[in-house]
Amino acid sequence: MSNISIKDDEVDIVIGALEPDLTYFLEEWRPVFSRFHLIIVKDPDLKGELKIPEGFNLNIYTKSDIDRVVGSSPISFSGYSCRYFGYLMSRKKYIISIDDDCIPARDSKGGLIDAVAQHITNLTTPATPFFFNTLYDPYCEGADFVRGYPFSLRTGVDCGLSSGLWLNLADYDAPTQALKPENRNSRYVDAVLTVPAGTMMPLSGINIGFNSELVGPALVPAFRLAKEGKFRWETVEDIWSGMCVKVVCDHLKLGVKSGKPYVWRKERGSAIESLKKEWEGVKLMEEVIPFFQSIRFSEEAKTAEDCVAEIASLVKEQLGPLNPMFARAADTTVEWIKLWKRVRAQ
Amino acid sequence: MSNISIKDDEVDIVIGALEPDLTYFLEEWRPVFSRFHLIIVKDPDLKGELKIPEGFNLNIYTKSDIDRVVGSSPISFSGYSCRYFGYLMSRKKYIISIDDDCIPARDSKGGLIDAVAQHITNLTTPATPFFFNTLYDPYCEGADFVRGYPFSLRTGVDCGLSSGLWLNLADYDAPTQALKPENRNSRYVDAVLTVPAGTMMPLSGINIGFNSELVGPALVPAFRLAKEGKFRWETVEDIWSGMCVKVVCDHLKLGVKSGKPYVWRKERGSAIESLKKEWEGVKLMEEVIPFFQSIRFSEEAKTAEDCVAEIASLVKEQLGPLNPMFARAADTTVEWIKLWKRVRAQ
Repeated sequence: MSNISIKDDEVDIVIGALEPDLTYFLEEWRPVFSRFHLIIVKDPDLKGELKIPEGFNLNIYTKSDIDRVVGSSPISFSGYSCRYFGYLMSRKKYIISIDDDCIPARDSKGGLIDAVAQHITNLTTPATPFFFNTLYDPYCEGADFVRGYPFSLRTGVDCGLSSGLWLNLADYDAPTQALKPENRNSRYVDAVLTVPAGTMMPLSGINIGFNSELVGPALVPAFRLAKEGKFRWETVEDIWSGMCVKVVCDHLKLGVKSGKPYVWRKERGSAIESLKKEWEGVKLMEEVIPFFQSIRFSEEAKTAEDCVAEIASLVKEQLGPLNPMFARAADTTVEWIKLWKRVRAQ
Repeated sequence: MSNISIKDDEVDIVIGALEPDLTYFLEEWRPVFSRFHLIIVKDPDLKGELKIPEGFNLNIYTKSDIDRVVGSSPISFSGYSCRYFGYLMSRKKYIISIDDDCIPARDSKGGLIDAVAQHITNLTTPATPFFFNTLYDPYCEGADFVRGYPFSLRTGVDCGLSSGLWLNLADYDAPTQALKPENRNSRYVDAVLTVPAGTMMPLSGINIGFNSELVGPALVPAFRLAKEGKFRWETVEDIWSGMCVKVVCDHLKLGVKSGKPYVWRKERGSAIESLKKEWEGVKLMEEVIPFFQSIRFSEEAKTAEDCVAEIASLVKEQLGPLNPMFARAADTTVEWIKLWKRVRAQ
């Protein structure tokens, strides 16, 4: 699919293991993943030995590794957040991360869709955040810039993050999923687009790729709900870190792409059960979004690290008084930047 | 396709006739157009009698009608701009306009795509310009708002304009078309999205629908190139009026959607020939786009008419000194608003 030539060793596939048996997951992905190095991070809350099939080039991190590296930090890497420990430990330029309840999607002819190749294409071709192209990503094969698109903006900018999508079980929140339990996403939209600068979006962490050198520290495991669960609809950590990445990319003149690749999301959990216990994430979004929309960085903020430090201060100051969850997010962010620097200095 | 119930008599289909024989065009569209009232405006430069098949409910306007209504105004309705005379004369809420070198696109099973129904769906379902939904238009059948999308923004806003796309001959500018003469658009992207607020886009006038009550006067035939031709790539009138509509919609909190429906664009003209004579439109875009990106309306601007009057002043003041074409566009815009009001007062 991709004609982009990057070396396989520039890529880490980071998988958070929320279930111990990864056999089915990894066998399904074998044709795609086997060329690459994998980082598997076991949810520190997960009991039992991981089951991982042979034939992969990988590192496994567990609770003892997390404790050794992170020490007494207030950052929690439990549940979906365990993958952030993988982001922290990776030394590769590109990181691809896919939830362990997803398998490769298939095209209309039954062919396997190579999500990694598509993420790499998205990340290594220019993004166009400053003007919308009606034919979507002009760098896709067969596409181009349409009439009226200014020539001065056609070179585009570097892409920081690629947000992929899902077929079958879509990434709805618990109320939506509970209201429409039969809803499945069957629409395959054959497009990638750059989400325009200044526009906020709900990033889903289910299926993403990013350039760790450009935006790595902005994927911060900062926003943990008090009763965070082990299903996607019980979490907002990815939405929050997606907001961080988006405002950072807008400030640093980088792009965020959304669309292809798709993965196939299997069923897991009961939205009705989740709905009973958790509405907090949905409610907090009403504060979170206007906050991120209002962020303006200082001119001194030249890197993702600089920007994330400014986000931490703004969260503390503006959101902190509203809810202790926000104050904790600010503190965690400060710790995350320290940790990111420390691990990279070793 | 659409379950939206609007009355057929709320819609005008406006066709600019740039060629005298509309037989093939109208026969191809008969299954779609025959329910609706048509307004056909003959390019005042076009010689010969129009050939129009029987069985349509229509009004035809020619040069004598234009002269009668418009008198000695500086507005030119020649070439692609003749359709704006149709927009002016229509009294319907919704206007759909399709170039006379386009026929209905067909889906993968050979079924005809009803572009009018899709435009009406786009125009009568809410738009979501203030936050991007990764599954595209949440009001499409089978779609919804994804996790993290704030509930307070889910009701959306009214849609002002629906910008459709094209299969086969894409809408490139003359240089792109000349550089890649074999390029054809074969990618059918099964999506509609709201172009986010604050994001500018190159509107193509080939295949559009709009709510004339909300944004009608913003579709202004103001920007005429000195050597404007009779092929799309020799014009920018639609790009300019699209910029007007977009900034007006952003200010009035209305949406602009882009994507489906597709039409099938036939071949017409030679990009190489056009390239020899015309680069002006492409060059002027470099001034036009930052100008429109910088527009901020006053609080007094409450309607599209108010906004367009402010655009005219700003164009005169900021762009006028750069090129006489811009000064003329400002004057034409002022005349257009007068004309729009006068015709509606009759």
